[in-house]
Amino acid sequence: MLKPGSTIGILGGGQLARMLALAGARLGLKSHVFSPVDDDPAFDVCSAHTRADFLDEAALAAFAEAVDVVTYEFENVPARTAEVLEARRPVRPNPKVLALTQDRLVEKDFVQGLGIPTAGFADVLDAEGLARAVERLGRPSILKTRRFGYDGKGQTQIREGADLAEAFRSLGGVPCILESFVPFTKEVSVVAARGLDGEFRAYDVCENVHEHHILATTTAPAAIGPETAEAAVDVARRIAEAAEYVGVIAVEMFVVEDEGRETLVVNEIAPRVHNSGHWTVDGAVTSQFEQHMRAVAGMPLGSTRRHGQKVVMRNLIGADADKWANILAEDGACLHLYGKKETRAGRKMGHVTRVVSRD
Amino acid sequence: MLKPGSTIGILGGGQLARMLALAGARLGLKSHVFSPVDDDPAFDVCSAHTRADFLDEAALAAFAEAVDVVTYEFENVPARTAEVLEARRPVRPNPKVLALTQDRLVEKDFVQGLGIPTAGFADVLDAEGLARAVERLGRPSILKTRRFGYDGKGQTQIREGADLAEAFRSLGGVPCILESFVPFTKEVSVVAARGLDGEFRAYDVCENVHEHHILATTTAPAAIGPETAEAAVDVARRIAEAAEYVGVIAVEMFVVEDEGRETLVVNEIAPRVHNSGHWTVDGAVTSQFEQHMRAVAGMPLGSTRRHGQKVVMRNLIGADADKWANILAEDGACLHLYGKKETRAGRKMGHVTRVVSRD
Repeated sequence: MLKPGSTIGILGGGQLARMLALAGARLGLKSHVFSPVDDDPAFDVCSAHTRADFLDEAALAAFAEAVDVVTYEFENVPARTAEVLEARRPVRPNPKVLALTQDRLVEKDFVQGLGIPTAGFADVLDAEGLARAVERLGRPSILKTRRFGYDGKGQTQIREGADLAEAFRSLGGVPCILESFVPFTKEVSVVAARGLDGEFRAYDVCENVHEHHILATTTAPAAIGPETAEAAVDVARRIAEAAEYVGVIAVEMFVVEDEGRETLVVNEIAPRVHNSGHWTVDGAVTSQFEQHMRAVAGMPLGSTRRHGQKVVMRNLIGADADKWANILAEDGACLHLYGKKETRAGRKMGHVTRVVSRD
Repeated sequence: MLKPGSTIGILGGGQLARMLALAGARLGLKSHVFSPVDDDPAFDVCSAHTRADFLDEAALAAFAEAVDVVTYEFENVPARTAEVLEARRPVRPNPKVLALTQDRLVEKDFVQGLGIPTAGFADVLDAEGLARAVERLGRPSILKTRRFGYDGKGQTQIREGADLAEAFRSLGGVPCILESFVPFTKEVSVVAARGLDGEFRAYDVCENVHEHHILATTTAPAAIGPETAEAAVDVARRIAEAAEYVGVIAVEMFVVEDEGRETLVVNEIAPRVHNSGHWTVDGAVTSQFEQHMRAVAGMPLGSTRRHGQKVVMRNLIGADADKWANILAEDGACLHLYGKKETRAGRKMGHVTRVVSRD
């Protein structure tokens, strides 16, 4: 177990790294943030930062020397970066999780290999492959790049009449995966943590609403049956255990309702703190950020108990954040702004959490 | 109203400044910490810091230029420091509050002038003055230096048989105040905030237990009658209004019970965030630290609503903090460590908060 006063190295300097550093500071942990981006949001709150490219091996080596353990705020850490760091310091979650989650095909194979349902899927290497996949999975279906997709980027719907060659070209002609359409009624996620000793703790399953492919709101708890909630947590646990995971993990799932019966389909795994866990900062005893820092430091996990009857988190996307003064004036609203210098459409600028009291 | 992205200058770099900086970061506010102490706890979490003496006028001027508003984590800011800063930037709370709270005699005069009860007191300039004061206020009574006392430092009890000349000498022969003994049954405090627009919001009155003159635990809410709680908040409000206060203020009071009736006696005013408000970080919708940052930035105040049925904060003094691993392993305990390099007896190293659920 690392002691207070130890330094956690964080790859990436966005809002997730920022909130990790803030949470670590509560426990007396220092954060050293490594990011190639100037003036990244996390730089303002960490005890040290390195501004360098993820493939700058000298900078990586010096960074490793300066920290006690390495973690990351995003899954697209280059394999070579992880390799250089892992030779010098523990990297948590372990880098094989990166390989797993960087490629949608590998991830789906892994999940199905555990006997956990996913959408139907097919590997697509070219336009002919897409035609065969559509033949099998039907329309509508969704074509996604295997790598580097997020917030709806790198994907396109295959509807009736869609030109398949054009659809494949529109994603850059890179290796893709076709996913069958899941007729879901709700999107939920399990944000959970696994400790170095294998202990597993999940927050309440929460319900997510996306707008324009970006998370708009998360509500905890999700309005699903208790057995479905239990099954969802069990899915996350099995994934975390199979991956020998250490840290916070988020598993996004679809809820499909059939004659009143709810079943779960895993959509995506995020090997990191997750936007759908932001509600825990104001709405749970231990935030997902502190939980992650505890886990990667080898410390015991904290309580995931929720405050209040219900907690609702809303993202502030682009110009939404201009309403900060109204939100500050709203009784009971907890405002979070990430310190980004430039407001851009579609950019996550902050979030607001409302804890609905039991009273 | 300052905008997110603005910089709050904080005088002092201890745990209070550290927690102010962490809270400001949530709102997208930057903190610039000014402290004469090397490696002060707040340096690790602020976007900038100045290590210089409080009387280094060039450093103060540069600091003022770099920030949008100045606040402080402790009341013993030299008058000249405040003067230099105030010529350049707003200082909040206003520096006349410093003059008021730096001298126990001035403070007591101010409180009594508002018609609010305090312990009986007398100015003591020499041993003969002490004899006259003891004649009037009786024994036991407490002799305190007028300035620079904290955590029981700079005070001594005058018991039966005590040598008065020796007692006066033991405090260094500086100007003192003799305070009559208050036969209190409880110590409570009101942590509250007043906004730039005069809005006033108080947290639940909380109950404090001291050990060896240092705060040991705070419990919110205090076990006092609702009318007493209302009266306590009213006292804090009158003090804040009379001082044209902006920011978080703490007013410590004694509860005296007489035939089942509770009356309040003001003990001390702290013109800053206060140890007895640390429970709000985990136990209230808005922490006292965020509340202070909101107030000094001219932003609306946040909700002071408490989570749970009861919240208990315990200070980790000196070697108490060595039990951090046990506390981390305790379900529902929220650990805070201040990142101090050296553990010393009597030093506040951290605190732990326990929110007792309504369930």
